[in-house]
Order: sequence, then C-alpha cells, then structure tokens
Amino acid sequence: MKREIFLEEKPLEEALAGYWEFLRNLGALDPGPAETVPVAASCGRVTAGPVFAAVSHPHFHAAAMDGYAVQARRTFGATEQSPLRLRVGEEAFPVDTGDVLPEGCDAVIMVEDTHAVTPDVIEITAAVFPYQNVRVMGEDVVATEMLLPANYSIRPVDVGALLAGGVTTVAVHPQPRVALIPTGTEVVAPGTALKPGDIVDFNSPMLAAMVREWGGVPVRHEIIPDDFAALKDAVSRAAAEYDMVLTIAGASAGREDFTAAVVRACGTLFAHGVAIKPGKPVVLGAVAGKPFIGLPGYPVSTVLNAELFARPVIFAKQGRVVPDREKVAATLSRRVVSPAGVEEFVRVKLGRTGEKIVATPLGRGAGRLMTLVQADGILRVPRFAEGFEAGSVVTVELLRTRREIEETIVIIGSHDLALDIIANFLRLKFPEATLSSAHVGSLGGLLAVKRGEAHAAGTHLLDEETGEYNVPYVQRYLAGVPVVLVNLSYREQGFIVIPGNPKGIRDFSDLLREEVRFVNRQRGAGTRVLLDFHLRRLGLDPQRITGYQREEYTHMAVAAAVAGGTADVGLGIRAAAVALGLDFVPVAEERYDLCVLKEHWEGKVGERLRVVLGDPEFRAAVLARGGYDLRDCGQVLYVQE
Amino acid sequence: MKREIFLEEKPLEEALAGYWEFLRNLGALDPGPAETVPVAASCGRVTAGPVFAAVSHPHFHAAAMDGYAVQARRTFGATEQSPLRLRVGEEAFPVDTGDVLPEGCDAVIMVEDTHAVTPDVIEITAAVFPYQNVRVMGEDVVATEMLLPANYSIRPVDVGALLAGGVTTVAVHPQPRVALIPTGTEVVAPGTALKPGDIVDFNSPMLAAMVREWGGVPVRHEIIPDDFAALKDAVSRAAAEYDMVLTIAGASAGREDFTAAVVRACGTLFAHGVAIKPGKPVVLGAVAGKPFIGLPGYPVSTVLNAELFARPVIFAKQGRVVPDREKVAATLSRRVVSPAGVEEFVRVKLGRTGEKIVATPLGRGAGRLMTLVQADGILRVPRFAEGFEAGSVVTVELLRTRREIEETIVIIGSHDLALDIIANFLRLKFPEATLSSAHVGSLGGLLAVKRGEAHAAGTHLLDEETGEYNVPYVQRYLAGVPVVLVNLSYREQGFIVIPGNPKGIRDFSDLLREEVRFVNRQRGAGTRVLLDFHLRRLGLDPQRITGYQREEYTHMAVAAAVAGGTADVGLGIRAAAVALGLDFVPVAEERYDLCVLKEHWEGKVGERLRVVLGDPEFRAAVLARGGYDLRDCGQVLYVQE
Repeated sequence: MKREIFLEEKPLEEALAGYWEFLRNLGALDPGPAETVPVAASCGRVTAGPVFAAVSHPHFHAAAMDGYAVQARRTFGATEQSPLRLRVGEEAFPVDTGDVLPEGCDAVIMVEDTHAVTPDVIEITAAVFPYQNVRVMGEDVVATEMLLPANYSIRPVDVGALLAGGVTTVAVHPQPRVALIPTGTEVVAPGTALKPGDIVDFNSPMLAAMVREWGGVPVRHEIIPDDFAALKDAVSRAAAEYDMVLTIAGASAGREDFTAAVVRACGTLFAHGVAIKPGKPVVLGAVAGKPFIGLPGYPVSTVLNAELFARPVIFAKQGRVVPDREKVAATLSRRVVSPAGVEEFVRVKLGRTGEKIVATPLGRGAGRLMTLVQADGILRVPRFAEGFEAGSVVTVELLRTRREIEETIVIIGSHDLALDIIANFLRLKFPEATLSSAHVGSLGGLLAVKRGEAHAAGTHLLDEETGEYNVPYVQRYLAGVPVVLVNLSYREQGFIVIPGNPKGIRDFSDLLREEVRFVNRQRGAGTRVLLDFHLRRLGLDPQRITGYQREEYTHMAVAAAVAGGTADVGLGIRAAAVALGLDFVPVAEERYDLCVLKEHWEGKVGERLRVVLGDPEFRAAVLARGGYDLRDCGQVLYVQE
Repeated sequence: MKREIFLEEKPLEEALAGYWEFLRNLGALDPGPAETVPVAASCGRVTAGPVFAAVSHPHFHAAAMDGYAVQARRTFGATEQSPLRLRVGEEAFPVDTGDVLPEGCDAVIMVEDTHAVTPDVIEITAAVFPYQNVRVMGEDVVATEMLLPANYSIRPVDVGALLAGGVTTVAVHPQPRVALIPTGTEVVAPGTALKPGDIVDFNSPMLAAMVREWGGVPVRHEIIPDDFAALKDAVSRAAAEYDMVLTIAGASAGREDFTAAVVRACGTLFAHGVAIKPGKPVVLGAVAGKPFIGLPGYPVSTVLNAELFARPVIFAKQGRVVPDREKVAATLSRRVVSPAGVEEFVRVKLGRTGEKIVATPLGRGAGRLMTLVQADGILRVPRFAEGFEAGSVVTVELLRTRREIEETIVIIGSHDLALDIIANFLRLKFPEATLSSAHVGSLGGLLAVKRGEAHAAGTHLLDEETGEYNVPYVQRYLAGVPVVLVNLSYREQGFIVIPGNPKGIRDFSDLLREEVRFVNRQRGAGTRVLLDFHLRRLGLDPQRITGYQREEYTHMAVAAAVAGGTADVGLGIRAAAVALGLDFVPVAEERYDLCVLKEHWEGKVGERLRVVLGDPEFRAAVLARGGYDLRDCGQVLYVQE
C-alpha cells in the first residue's frame, strides 16, 4: 500500500452537503421497505405512511356523566324550584359514565341534579338539552380519518390514539442496522488485562449507544487488525448485510491506516479529510450502495464525526430530521485561539454566576474523552475565524439542559480531591444540582471570582510575610468585592515520590540533585507558591531543579507523572499520593478555603454547600482519602464586605 | 359499598407537595438497592454512587502523531535551513499514533518534519520539546479519579469514558417496575371485535409507553372487572410485587368506582380528587408502602394525572429530576374561559405566522385523545383565573420542539379532507414540516388570516349576488391585505344520507319534512352559507328544519352523525359520505381555494405547498377520495395587492 501522507481539507459545509448529495444519488438515504409492528410496541418508531382510523371512538353514543339517560324534551322546565318527576326504567335509565345510551334517549341528567323519590321515581331539578352529557359516536376519532401522517415519530399518546381508532399494527420505517467495525492490531476488548501499547476498544460500545439513541440498531463487529485484506473483507461483508458501515480508527494517512484504501478498493470514496478540529481524518464514502464512514480512532474525533456525518444519515433513513441543539449566548472566560482554515469544536463548561452565562474552554485534545463528559456545550470557531477574545459573547450549543446549567455551582481555582466528593454529595442531596470545577490554580480562581465567572474559588495561598493563608490575597486581589472565606480543610502538602522513595527525597534541597527529575505545578497554583516560598527561604535556585519548567494543573496529574515514571518527585497533597499508591514525605499543613461571593453564600449556592459540608458522610469520605483535617470545615473564617 | 358522590377539590400545588411529603415519609421515593449492569448496556441508567477510574487512560506514554520517537534534546537546533540527521533504530524510532513511546524517548517528531536519507538515517527539519506529540499516561483519565458522581444519567460518551477508565460494570439505581391495572367490566383488550358499550383498553398500552419513556419498567396487568374484592386483591398483590401501582378508570365517585374504597381498605388514601381540569377524579395513596395512583379512565385525564403525579415519582426512584418542558410566549387566537377554582390544562395548536407565535385552543373534553395528539403545547389556566382574552400573550409549555413549531404551516378555515392528504405529503417531501389545520369555517379562516394567526385559510364561500366563489369575500373582509387565492379543488357538495336513502331526500324542501332529522354546520362555514343561500332562494324557512340548530364543525362530524343514526341527513362533501360508506345526493359543484398571505406564498410556505399541490401522487390520493376535480389545483386564481 502506498502511504498517504496528506489528507484533503474539505470545508465542513461542503463535505456535509456534498456527502448528502452523493448518498441521495445512490438512494442510500431511503428508508427501505416498511415493516409492520404492533402499535403497543411502536413508540419511538416512525410511520412509513399515513395511518387511518379503522373504527370511531367512541364507537357508540355513551353517557358522559353518571346519572340518568333521558329524552331531553321530557326534562324541559325542571328547576330547583319546580322539579319534575320521571319514572325509572321507562323515562329515566340509570347510567354510568361510558355506558351505552339506551335506545330512545338523547341526553344524560347528572346524578347531582336528581334524587330518588321512590325506588321507581326520581325527581330532577334541572333540564338538559339534546346530547348534553353524551359522548357522541366519533367525538374523538371518526372512522377513516387520518390519525397520523407519514414520517411521524410515534409518542405514547399516539399509541393511545391509534388503538382508540381500532389500529393495532402500524407500518413503520425499519431501524437502520449499523455495523461498527473497530480496527487496530493493538486494540483489545474492554475488560482485557492491559499490556503497554494495548488500546481498549471503548469506542465501539460508545458508538453503539449513540446509534441506539438515534434510533438505529448497532451491530458490533469483532476487532479487525491493521491488515488491508482483512479490513476489506470485513467491510465488504458488512456492507452487503447491513444498512450502513462505520469503521473505527485507521482513517488517517499513517502507515497502518487502510480505511481510505479499502473504500477505494471495494466502494466509492467521496472524501478523505475534512477541515474540522478535532476529527480531520475522516473517510466518507459508500460500499455496496450503503453509506460508509471511516471514523478516526481518537474518541473525541469519533464522536464528533459520528454526530456530524452518521447521525443525519441514520435519521434520514427513518424519515426523521435531526433535532437542533438548544443554543445559548455565553461570555467567554478565556481567550480561544484556533487555526484559520478549520472549523474547530471547542468543548466548554457553562455556569450562570450572575447576570450572564460564562463559558470556560476545556482541554482540546482529540484523545481527551473526559472533556466531552465534562462539557456543557460546544463552541464552534468558524473556518475563517482565528478564535475569540476573552469576554466575547459567543453562541454555545448545549450538551446539557439549560436547567442543568442554571443549577450548576461553578468552583474555579485550586484543585483538591475533596471537590469531587462535594460534587458527588451535592448530586445525592440535590439531584438537580451539578458541581463544575475547573483547575486553574488558587490565584486564577480568585481572579475568576472577581470577574464574576465563578461562584467560588478553591484557594490555599500562603502569604510569605505574615505566614497567613488566603486572607491577605483576598484583601489584595479582591479589594472591595464582598466575599467570604469558608474553610474546606487543612491538608498535608509534601513530596509525592515513587514507592520506597528510591531517590531518598527528604527536603527541598534534594530537588536540586542532578539525578532527581521534578514535576512542577503551574504558576498561580497554591502549591507552586508554597514551593517557591520554601526555595527562597532556603536560598535554593529553582533553575537548578530538573523539571522545574514542566507544569501540571492538578495534584493527580503530578502524582500520575511520578507513577508513570516520567518524574521522581512532585509537590502535592497526601491524598493524591495515596490514590495512586505512591509514597509521601510531608512538608507542611496548609489551609484550603473556598472563597465564595457573599451574595452566593447567602443564596442557594451557599445553602447547598452548607448542607454538603455539614454532612457526616461527606466528612467521612474526605477523611478516608488521607491527609485531611476537617476541624474548621464549613466555618466562615473571614468576611469581606 | 357506599356510593361516594363528592370528590375533594384539593388545589394542585397542595396535592403535589402533600403527596410528595406523604411518599417521602413512607420511604416510597427511595430508589432501593442498586443493581450492577455492564457499562456497555448502561446508557440511560442512573449511577447509584460515584464511579472511579480503575486504570489511567492512556495507561502508557503514547505517540500522539505518526513519525519518529526521539530524545527531544537531540533535536534542538534542527530547522528547514539546517536539518539534523538521526540514526533510525538508535536515535529515532518509527512510531504510529498510539504506539508505546520507546524506552529513553520523550518526544515524537512528526513524519512531515522528516525525510529518509538512507534506510538507516533520517533528516529532521524541526526541533521538538520534551513530551511534544506525546500523549502522557493519564492525559485523559488518571486512575482513581472520579469519572461520574452519583445520580448521574449515563450518556453514550460516559459509556466511553467509563470503559476508557477500566470500568466495565457500574452500580445503577433499579428501574422502577410499575404495575398498570386496567379496570372496568366493559373494558376489552385492543383488537377485540367491539360490541356496543365495549371500551377498548388503549390506556394501558399508552401508559406503558409513557412509563418506559420515563425509565420505568411497565407491567401490564390483566383487565379487572368492576368488583371491589377483585380489584382489592389485584392491587394488594401488585403492590407486594412491584415498586408502584397505577389503576386505570374507576377513580371517580360513581356506582362502580371502587378505587378509593380499595385504597382505604388495603392501604392509605392521601387524596381523592384534585382541583384540575381535566383529571379531577384522581386517587392518590400508598399500598404496602408503594406509591399508588388511581387514574381516571378518560384518556386525557389519565395522561395528565400520570404526568403530574406518577412521572416525578418514577424519576425520583431513579435519582433523576423531571426535566422542564420548554416554554414559549404565544398570542391567543381565541378567548379561553375556564372555571375559577380549578387549574385547567388547555391543549393548544401553535404556529408562527409572522412576528408572533399564535396559540389556538383545541377541544377540551377529557375523552378527546386526538386533541393531545394534535396539541403542540399546554396552556395552564391558574386556579384563580377565569381564563384569558383573545389576543393575550400567554405562556405555553411545549409538547413538540420549537423547531417543529417554527416549521409548521398553519391553515385555519374550512375543513376539507384534502388537507389531511396535504399534511401527509408535506411530511413526506419535507420531514421537518407539519401542517396544522383548525376547522373554524371559511369566514373564520379568512379572519384568522387577516389577524395574522394563519398562513392560509381554506375557503369556499359563495357570493349570493355574483355567484362567484371567494373573491368577493376576500375583497370585503380582507380589503388592503395582500393575499392570493390558490385553487385546491372543485368539489361536489350534496346531501349525505343513510345508505339507500330511506327518507328519500332529493331536494332542500325535503329537509323541512317532520320525520327528517338534519345536522347542520356552524355559522361562517362555506357549507352553511351554501345551505342558507339555497333555502333563501327557495323561500324555505330554516326554523322548520329539525336539527337546524345542531352545529358540527367538520364534514366528517356531519357524516358521523348520519352514520351514527342521530341524524338522517346533512349537507357536506362527497368524500365524507364515501369515507363512511354513506349515500350522497349531489347539489352543487363548488370551488375550494386556499387564501394565502402573499408574503407566505412567495416564501417557504408557498414553495412547499407548490411542491405538494403539483405532485402527481398527491393528486391521485385526493381524486381517490371521490367528488374532487383538480383542473385548477395549484393555480393562482386571484391576487390582491
């Protein structure tokens, strides 16, 4: 196989429109022959043609009230003052709601407007007009009337109406069967014990769930190794058997990327490469007249391309239209820079922290699936734009409901494992609430609070002059902003080291040793401030530390670097070391506070945080992580008006 | 059993809050013990606790590009102008995206920045910094980090993230099993051949679909006759076995309504009767500690009460919050009068016909399920309000998406069966489009167009002086409004009579015979104008016609009245007679036009209507109904600037 090095960069709108036209001309968007299903099992399916009522509903004249069926004209003149008497069984017939109207009767007098004089005679205190309190035949549905048009998604009430109209089976579009073919010699099924280099096939179960959500029937194929003939064989067979074929990975132009070549060999290639980010290396084509999409292996690229290209096809084959995502206007908390020439899909967190909804961009790597899990929305940066400035008002497509956004508590700042535990207990106590936390370091958090981008900041900033935590920083950076400092915990900071501490790290001076590789935190992080404080105090030159320039954004990322063997030591909290089975050399106890805007502490946000922080189970869960002291947890330690 | 005649009228908010509290105190809202499911099958389920990553993702340092793995410091200084050479297999190792980073390497140089000099030597034209183009271990997920909190609804991307984090099974809340017990001696299963008085149990399949949509597992019970002991037995057993029990019908206070008594006997009754319309006779309680709701039998009441009372319980038992319905502001096209003291739920059709969204109330009977099928939204009339004036701006909860509303073509006016056929072909040609037609008669339609409440009106109004159709009315009632009259059809009007015409109806004079019962159309209907025109022409006194006061709103309703035996004759179109197997005595050919606002005819609405009206299959479907002539169909017959 010739190695393809360069991909096309087809503009997205051109790729979408062109691929649609390409498939339409092949007839590959048609739903195919209808199938007949029982109405009771038809919910969510789409009608293949109009549906007409077989019987009327009701199919007889029925009493619409409990009471007596009568001839209306016999009741004329009856009032409270001058009641009339009717003979039961001759002029008045007891009926319950839903009963057939007896022969000769044309109205029902409500039981409330009657009383029994003798067992055979009632007195009525109101008149009725013809067909009063009668459900006439066909009141709801008239036989032969159209109940539902074609291409109509059946809902529960429609199930009821079809059955009411005497329709018990319905012709619906078939659910497209979509073959999912994971590829890659190094790819293994979920649950396999992992060797280095193994890649877990989490994409195909994820895509299967997506296809199912879109109304299709996913068929997961076994994993195909990087082998042209094997892939060609699998794709050809799948295209012959199913309605659509998606392959996963191998879509780029690497040595072992065979997807495009396979489509050229056994079908028609429409495009290889679309100018989007992430997700550029996608293969669009058709095999055996069936839509074929070669998805890239990075999970965010896979999801994005499946949504852009596969979803509309799966909907079209059911006679459905892809619903629009709700959009909101949001204010960007940070600058977004994006290359011109590609349409970029930036994942953002959203939160309402006052008048406006604030959007904070998340990590942008195509391999970072958790950013899609965490994202509340997608910001599209158009092909001819190079990004947006901080503070711009942008349009965001929602991935969660607007209500979820409105109920989200936004905590930006220093990272602490207890924030995850807060997130969990918040959800348990208030199922509608979500905690959104972004990790930008303590100082970044305080500034986010100042700019109104967060309800609260997690902060542990040591003032070098006074030795006091947080308060001096709040006074300096948030002067005039009404906030409270609420303690979350005291926690142990120290050296996170390889188990057994093989490099013998004891003190800050050990970091300068030549054979010691350090991993640092980013500027503005409380842990970084702590490091720099001690280095200065001890007169140690940071530039002599190997790895001082390597910055990570969370305690867990520092611990992961040590666990992964790319560093020997990092400064961080004990809980992070405990979590990854690493050793820990304590250095200091520090105070970690939440800096909460006063209006939020006094409102719903504060109310909910107080419930969580005061919960004994929450506290037990935090203490179980190791290195925490909760003696002041939930206490307001400082108020700034 | 003592017959209960009066129901409580508990205000809705009190019933909702009180019932919630009642169930919470019983522990009946708790989800119950978690169950463990495979992650691949967990989509849509709700986490019972937080979920932590078992492995990091990636679980090794991996190449993030195709190219060569290198030590970054060996590349420093390389540029296009001064390339550096590296020995393959010693200093540079070929890698593909996803490969394990070879021992001793800390970066990847992209294949685009290299070229082969000999098989063993490459030249590189760019430097890389440490960890450039490397996916470090844990970049996406760090082992032990929290992936999902508790009470979290799992989506496809979450399935992917869980599997990426090495999680293959997940603890989720059980899906509540909801017993549905249809009751009523006269109730029969769908598909049964119907005798007069039989009521088809379409409610329990409809409720089953609703419960499934809400995440529960419906269990349809066999139909229980109106028998206290049988119902008590069924309810007790179901409550012992399932998580929630809903009965259908028998919830009111009639002679055969046992639900409330059963709950009193084997459980706890919380309320009988809530001040809502429709749906007042609902029974709220608990049996064996399980939520019990006795739903009324009228389908709209059933749906409404299930949504108000059952849905939040089913959600709560899964740790979920009921999502809000989207709301829009709409302008009421007609006055809505509602009794004070009850909260009424009025079904409305919605359409955007210009600047504003217009809401038109639909029929309000609790037995009219088709109104729920047709409704685009629900307008709540609060307990202390007596309704809204026409032209008021009201808040409507959407039952369809906003996009569907925006894509709806609103035709208000005279009823014609061809409108259903337009609705169907419109949907076939444009899956995103819907036709919404309300039947208020020709004149009502023209006035709706004038008020901007409809895109078009169906009209067949005969001018008595000129004998011309529609144009004089448009000139008179829509003076100054730019509209076009587009012909839909010429159609036969005549007498719809019982098969064999046993009363021998031949002419308008026959309507005055004493033994002939007539069914009329409402004032403003074109057919009514035609009737009155002929009566006046012939000097016949309408007041001598039995049934002249009985007004129906559609041709089909007139035909249904004749077919149902409550009338001997009505005036209407041939297609309605044909549809119900009735006989037809022709009287006149009339012209039926669509009066379309010019701006809409020249825009998307007109474009779509032209496609449908010009379609040969559409025309064949209309002609098949009988009595239609399409010689001018789609022609613009009159333009008013």
